[in-house]
Amino acid sequence: MLYFEDFTPGRRFDYQPVAVQAPDIIAFASEFDPQPMHLDEEAGKRSILGGLSASGWHTSAIGMRMMIDAFLGNSSSQGSPGIDFMDWKKPVLAGDVLTGFSLVLGARQSKSKPSVGIVKFRNEINNQTGEAIAVSECSVLFRLRDRGLRL
Amino acid sequence: MLYFEDFTPGRRFDYQPVAVQAPDIIAFASEFDPQPMHLDEEAGKRSILGGLSASGWHTSAIGMRMMIDAFLGNSSSQGSPGIDFMDWKKPVLAGDVLTGFSLVLGARQSKSKPSVGIVKFRNEINNQTGEAIAVSECSVLFRLRDRGLRL
Repeated sequence: MLYFEDFTPGRRFDYQPVAVQAPDIIAFASEFDPQPMHLDEEAGKRSILGGLSASGWHTSAIGMRMMIDAFLGNSSSQGSPGIDFMDWKKPVLAGDVLTGFSLVLGARQSKSKPSVGIVKFRNEINNQTGEAIAVSECSVLFRLRDRGLRL
Repeated sequence: MLYFEDFTPGRRFDYQPVAVQAPDIIAFASEFDPQPMHLDEEAGKRSILGGLSASGWHTSAIGMRMMIDAFLGNSSSQGSPGIDFMDWKKPVLAGDVLTGFSLVLGARQSKSKPSVGIVKFRNEINNQTGEAIAVSECSVLFRLRDRGLRL
């Protein structure tokens, strides 16, 4: 179990590979982002994305799941106040296999709530050719391990 | 059909209300963000979020769908290069009814691709009490209506 104290700057958590298949792309897009290039191969080929491609929100949600499986699911996470930025650098096409990592950029204890610390991460998602397809930075709140000692 | 030329600074597109129900919260979280406060009412009550609450990525995806239904689905959208920021300001709890708007902050024609323009939006999602629960800014690419005249 990982607590705030375990997120030291420079620590890196690698993601396990996830394959993104056409039915997943279409199912997510049908519910949340029904634009032609996310629903239909031919429409995708006619678009600037070059093929049936995942909604950026789908890619981002997959990235969240990769973070959960790599480290967040076994941590004292209390959620996140938001995303500093999210760059969708390349399309995610049907059949792509995604991987990547989260890197700890910084960590500080909360002044208003000393039982909690705030950790800033840089998150990169790559495809099977090693290209970065999504890069983001975000903060996550974690409970401290040793709450009593620090209050 | 809305083209680049229609996105003049100050133009505002209002969203239709969307109710967020517990089964939707749990289904999204089970796939993409399986943290206890997004899966279970009791765990949510024990968390700092105060109840079963939607993943921030779920709220963001719902916001995307509200943008599609309000204006993007009837436009020459070519997708987005990313999000400048996304602030999750308040939890979205089961039963909340979301609404909000997208406001055009600015618009410019692409230098490298003059058939396309880039529009910057501020997006606010509010709950039924009028509180802002998610605020973001992002850019979206649109084809120009009158491509020939401007090339």
